[in-house]
Amino acid sequence: MTLRVAVDWGTTTLRLWTLAPDGAAMIHRRSGRGMGKLSPSEFETAFLDLAGDLVAAAGSADVLICGMAGARSGWREAPYLPVPCAPGTAGAVRAETRDPRLSVHILPGLSQAEPADVMRGEETQIAGFLAARTVFDGVLCLPGTHTKWVRVRGGKVEHFRTVMTGELYALLSGASVLRLSMAENDPWRPDAFDRALHHSLSAPQDLTSALFSLRADSLLAELPGGTARSALSGLLIGHELAAMRPLWSANPIAIIGDPALSERYRAALAQAGCAAEMFDGSDMVLQGLRAAFAKMKET
Amino acid sequence: MTLRVAVDWGTTTLRLWTLAPDGAAMIHRRSGRGMGKLSPSEFETAFLDLAGDLVAAAGSADVLICGMAGARSGWREAPYLPVPCAPGTAGAVRAETRDPRLSVHILPGLSQAEPADVMRGEETQIAGFLAARTVFDGVLCLPGTHTKWVRVRGGKVEHFRTVMTGELYALLSGASVLRLSMAENDPWRPDAFDRALHHSLSAPQDLTSALFSLRADSLLAELPGGTARSALSGLLIGHELAAMRPLWSANPIAIIGDPALSERYRAALAQAGCAAEMFDGSDMVLQGLRAAFAKMKET
Repeated sequence: MTLRVAVDWGTTTLRLWTLAPDGAAMIHRRSGRGMGKLSPSEFETAFLDLAGDLVAAAGSADVLICGMAGARSGWREAPYLPVPCAPGTAGAVRAETRDPRLSVHILPGLSQAEPADVMRGEETQIAGFLAARTVFDGVLCLPGTHTKWVRVRGGKVEHFRTVMTGELYALLSGASVLRLSMAENDPWRPDAFDRALHHSLSAPQDLTSALFSLRADSLLAELPGGTARSALSGLLIGHELAAMRPLWSANPIAIIGDPALSERYRAALAQAGCAAEMFDGSDMVLQGLRAAFAKMKET
Repeated sequence: MTLRVAVDWGTTTLRLWTLAPDGAAMIHRRSGRGMGKLSPSEFETAFLDLAGDLVAAAGSADVLICGMAGARSGWREAPYLPVPCAPGTAGAVRAETRDPRLSVHILPGLSQAEPADVMRGEETQIAGFLAARTVFDGVLCLPGTHTKWVRVRGGKVEHFRTVMTGELYALLSGASVLRLSMAENDPWRPDAFDRALHHSLSAPQDLTSALFSLRADSLLAELPGGTARSALSGLLIGHELAAMRPLWSANPIAIIGDPALSERYRAALAQAGCAAEMFDGSDMVLQGLRAAFAKMKET
């Protein structure tokens, strides 16, 4: 019987699940061979290196992929679907394979013309969320390297914004002058996070000047490294929340992502007076891929 | 006769001038052996490698240094002078040397307790500016990796702010996902800079979301690399001007720095309705060191 493999292929990580006929996830595997490390001709090999034994045992495989594997420099480009639209299987493209046992489809990301924005991978988490919550009318926050804020209504993504908070945190704490003030072994300080969040939320124009104060504080007052890291996170998330206020202040909100990072956003929103539900990002992408498998079978 | 050597010793660059008895700059030399590449015991050698022949010819040398050579991990720490204060020779420390022909003094930087802030090197440019403009009552903007905005009155620095605009520009254009959209060979676009500046000035909370739009625009509409770089600069400088508005909107303003970068700030301030004079940063640091030599001779 044909094996069904659900794949979330991001820039840095490749994750897959085999699905039982009823949609239950059976085997989960991951590798570090993300899209960023592969040329187009290498994707098929990377997939077979991770799942070849499973394909051989089954004889053939239907493979459904979301994420950066569908980018222009990925396995095969799956052109963005413009919003407003329902994320699902529309726009899926077939990737040719050398191995005749494989049938591979890649789901498209979403695009927005004004303001210009794109996503790849998150749309499948959103589809997974909506599969069980078809009447959700609100905002989804998907924190990560590039955090997505998504207005959803009637099963469709209406519009969305990407904020580079995660990438800025990594660059500033790892490669800027602030790295000298960010000892990793010093613990997280919720009070420093809260103070910085409050500052940035109420004076978002201060972001790039408040950043340097962290360095000065560590030179003048020996600010502990954990305090500096917590404050950096608070400044960046506070700035993000200030920009996204029209979205979260007027709508029900759910956070989808890595549990630890989601908790940081939940706490930030709570401080701003907004209650949010949390959902695990891996669960949601799996459910999105499962729903897409079910839909493609129908058609 | 004892040689007088004025030195601006920054993180990345070491620059020196010999001064004639009347204070005129005679010989100018520079090397890439900035403070960032040296341990404390290596400064004397780095100095003599660059100026040893001049010291030998003169027989002895008085050396006056400003900049990061006075940091904790520099040649010898010159503790910060807290503002408000007049930048000059107060707080200068003597650095011991192995070579008895050298008499070396290092000028201190300035610090501010609230909001926490520090500078090292810029205070000497400010002293140079004030040497010829003792009654200046206004704001100095010193653009660079860490741009300084300095309120000056009665010959003193009253308070100041550091904004990490230059470092953020370098990180975002060189190491973030935006680097993929920033072709270096495509020309600067003043219209893109102006539009981004206007956006960021009027909606400074949008910085970290507007950044990703540059990437999306290049994916969706093949935004030229020069447009993306110009817009990135406009977004960051606009954000900076929004935060510093209380300073520049109410006071005369002068820009001290590298001429090309200063011109970018001048144009940005002009777009915001503010006229600024420009002064060359190298000239100002040399005049500051010259004034400090004259003052130390008096005492």
